[in-house]
Formats: sequence, structure tokens, C-alpha cells
Amino acid sequence: MSTEEPVPLYYDDLVLGDEHVAGTYTVTREAIIDFASEWDPQPFHIDEAAAQASFFGGLTACSAHIFSIFCITSQRWESGVVQMAVAGLGFDEMRMLRPVYAGDTLSCFTIVHALRESGSRPDCGIVTYRSELRNQRGEAVFSILATSMMARRQ
Amino acid sequence: MSTEEPVPLYYDDLVLGDEHVAGTYTVTREAIIDFASEWDPQPFHIDEAAAQASFFGGLTACSAHIFSIFCITSQRWESGVVQMAVAGLGFDEMRMLRPVYAGDTLSCFTIVHALRESGSRPDCGIVTYRSELRNQRGEAVFSILATSMMARRQ
Repeated sequence: MSTEEPVPLYYDDLVLGDEHVAGTYTVTREAIIDFASEWDPQPFHIDEAAAQASFFGGLTACSAHIFSIFCITSQRWESGVVQMAVAGLGFDEMRMLRPVYAGDTLSCFTIVHALRESGSRPDCGIVTYRSELRNQRGEAVFSILATSMMARRQ
Repeated sequence: MSTEEPVPLYYDDLVLGDEHVAGTYTVTREAIIDFASEWDPQPFHIDEAAAQASFFGGLTACSAHIFSIFCITSQRWESGVVQMAVAGLGFDEMRMLRPVYAGDTLSCFTIVHALRESGSRPDCGIVTYRSELRNQRGEAVFSILATSMMARRQ
């Protein structure tokens, strides 16, 4: 583990079109059941037998769990920078492309999709990332456009 | 608490434009910190002092937490029906309209926004709901379009 001070990433540091490798997350059977028991207790997320008999043929992570995995992995860029986020504004085109099963390892990839200055806050800029979670076979399981406000360099 | 068997709600039971009152959820300070510590550990979600000094002036729930609250409350219609959901397909126009603070009570309201038959699965239909979370002052804090596959009556 690095003891160096993390490098802050400001709006001004982003380059349109750049792709970044972000974090990785392995989804366990227990985590799928725990998360869904609290937030989306459908039989195919919490009951092994019901899941086997369902459309998916096995336990699958619920949408809120997958979105949460996106939230944590998308912050963890391989470069180790810390994004100077001020506020999440919105999300578009969130797609559940394939089921996420117990044991899957998801990796987040993100592209700087759009950049614009903030009308209301000159000390901030607005970034939209196009991001994807891919499983251990490289298949995209989730995609999203995420828009947030980021601090500018003083 | 009712001991009656819950009534299943199928795709065929939905009426375009109908509005439904769904569930309610109170967000505690501890829940905000616990959720964000795992999924979105930004200072303004997990550190009271940093949150006070931030744009928001107090601890606010992270996006993944608010989306999870939407997922659980949107299933709990006041009428007590159980939706025969088969799979979540996608979400659009998810907007964080106002911050969600500790102590806020959020209520979910949902409108049947679009209905279409499934091309691939004649036993299913595809519904899009336009939903909103409102706080105890009736202010919209979150809105979304949620599309899922639902079973049809046999």
C-alpha cells in the first residue's frame, strides 16, 4: 500500500475522449443476497432455488447493487488520483446489459465524454463520463453516462 | 399487518398514465454514513465536519443510497400488490434534484409512463415507470425513468 499523498484531479485536468481504467470488484453470493435483502428482495436476487428456476438460471445481483459497485469502482482510477467531486448531478442511459452472477469480477472503464463550464459556479466544471463495467470474460454487463460537478483549480 | 395473500400485479394490469403511491423511507445519519462508507466514501457523505463545510452544509446521502431507496420504495405500492417483475432493463434521466439530509423521509410516487409488448418474450411485457422521491416537505429530490420486463397473465 502506498504511503504517498494522493494526487487530486480537478476539472481542468480532464481531457475529452481520454479513457481511464478504474477499479475492480468481486461479487460474492453472500453480498448479492445481503444487498438485495435490504434493497430489492426479489426471489431471483435472494433465493437460490427461485433463482435457479428463473429466467437467469442463478442468483444475480440487483440493479442497486450493480450501480453501487459502479459508484465505488468508478472512483478508483488505476492512476491513484482523487477526483475533486462536488456533487453528483444525474445519470443517463443506465443499462443492465447482462446478468451479474455470484463470483463475477467486475472492472470499471471510463471515458471523458463531455466537459462544460458551470453557469452558476465559476469555481466548478461539469463532466460527463461514459462508463462500463465488464466481467472477467470482458463482457460489458453495465453501462452509464454519469454527470457530476467537479472543482476547478484555483 | 394484513395476513392476506398479496395480490400479484401483471403487465396486463397496468394502465398507461395511472399514478401510484408507493413506499416511504426515513434516512438516518447512521445509514447515510454506513452506506457511503462502503460505496461512495466522499467526505461530504461520511464526515460531519467536512459535510458542514461543503456546498451542502450537512451530511447528504450518496447517489447509490438514494437509488437504492428508490428501488425498495418503488416496489411497495400502497395497494399492497406484488409486481411480477422478471428483469430490470435500464434506467434513464436519473436526476439528483435536491440533497437528501439525515432525518429526511422520502416517499415514492410512480406513473405508468409507457407500455409495450416484448418482441423476444410473448409471455412478458415491458413497462417504463416515471418515478419521483419527495421529501417530507413535498419537494422532489430524485426522479427517474425505470424500464423493466414484467410477466403477463397466462
